[in-house]
Amino acid sequence: MRTPDEHRALVDGYLDELALTPELGALAEPVRYALEGGGKRIRPVLCLAAGEAAGSDAEQLLPAAAAVELVHTFSLVHDDLPALDDDALRRGRPSAHARFGEGIAILAGDALLAEAFRLALSYATPGVARELTQATLAMIGGQYLDVTGSHDDVAALHRLKTGALFGASIGCALWVAEVPERDQRPWREFADEVGLLFQIVDDILDDDGYVLSLGRESARGLADETVERAHARLGEIDADTSVLAEIVAALAARTS
Amino acid sequence: MRTPDEHRALVDGYLDELALTPELGALAEPVRYALEGGGKRIRPVLCLAAGEAAGSDAEQLLPAAAAVELVHTFSLVHDDLPALDDDALRRGRPSAHARFGEGIAILAGDALLAEAFRLALSYATPGVARELTQATLAMIGGQYLDVTGSHDDVAALHRLKTGALFGASIGCALWVAEVPERDQRPWREFADEVGLLFQIVDDILDDDGYVLSLGRESARGLADETVERAHARLGEIDADTSVLAEIVAALAARTS
Repeated sequence: MRTPDEHRALVDGYLDELALTPELGALAEPVRYALEGGGKRIRPVLCLAAGEAAGSDAEQLLPAAAAVELVHTFSLVHDDLPALDDDALRRGRPSAHARFGEGIAILAGDALLAEAFRLALSYATPGVARELTQATLAMIGGQYLDVTGSHDDVAALHRLKTGALFGASIGCALWVAEVPERDQRPWREFADEVGLLFQIVDDILDDDGYVLSLGRESARGLADETVERAHARLGEIDADTSVLAEIVAALAARTS
Repeated sequence: MRTPDEHRALVDGYLDELALTPELGALAEPVRYALEGGGKRIRPVLCLAAGEAAGSDAEQLLPAAAAVELVHTFSLVHDDLPALDDDALRRGRPSAHARFGEGIAILAGDALLAEAFRLALSYATPGVARELTQATLAMIGGQYLDVTGSHDDVAALHRLKTGALFGASIGCALWVAEVPERDQRPWREFADEVGLLFQIVDDILDDDGYVLSLGRESARGLADETVERAHARLGEIDADTSVLAEIVAALAARTS
């Protein structure tokens, strides 16, 4: 089995070589710019690691892993727009609209979402595309709650904004690996814990969210409990999940 | 077989009752607002008429027909944004961003696109969702050409911006009706002519596009030739295509 660093290199290579739909023409440039942003590729790495643990191989999994990353990138491009979060910077570079203009960024985000569905639809099973669609809708609902400030439950907001796509990272891998629905439960509960862990650590790094509501020490404690629950879920899975355990440790320890 | 007016009533009823993904929460309001705009529903009516002619029934076809209309509506909501076509009015009402603000309109457009894929993925065959994805990507590419003014071929621009989704209206119906690929050619060629006819008549009504490049009389002549070719394609189809012929006549004669 590959390490998370090897998975990340595979994802970067796949995205670099990804043939976009020819009809997008020169819109391919802002689409590639957004994809190149040098993110950590946590979601597609999780997809590859889960899929390999479940018995599939990276070549089979890569379109699904890339589709998840494209949905994530679509959400960043649109969320960064002036009318939403208004971020001119993304990972130290001009965000898509700052670099290409708002109109082009809107279209590039749309194209990323549609390309994600195209990748998800390259499978014979509709499970991958259905999983991704549900997660996308939840994520859009979460962003709506966030920008309108109409949420009164931070955990529920995070489940939509962050958790849904972490869930799809694992869920898509399960469909590709043909894990029967009756056996998917511990994998999906693991995905929930990973999404929560990612969000708590994000808040600790940003002095935000859970740190504001619980205090720094309790947030750290909550992260530790989440790590334990994630490991417990892995323990219920009859497969070599050591790479997934390694990802959990890295997420808990991350400093950026 | 139903008349186009009956198809339109079915589409309006289906869209009125459409259960949106619960996670969208209050974003459902701008989504429904955009869908209620009182359009002519030409694309979903074409889908129903083609699918019924090919032997399917309206109940089977409605999710696909609605999916096509949702993709069309997504494109209108995003294209109307200030950073793109900057239209504050849509069919005599404030456009989505004028009514709800730009950020909400961006998210509502995203939600419409994702809901369209959800509907397309309700079928066992992946053909419907694949057809819709390809058309969406072509349409986005066309809008990019249009806003950047980087096209030098009006016909090619229209094939992307308008033609692709007309093609999908018929194409999705063919997948639902399980028309084998080897028998799809005349249907798809018919769809091309209908998309072209729609665009020429649009230009005649708006004093735009083909009227500017060919003059009004030649544009009218081109519309008449397109009608003839559309009827010729219907003649190659071994089915009762009388309702499709009626739609062509109505498109050629439309005054708004």
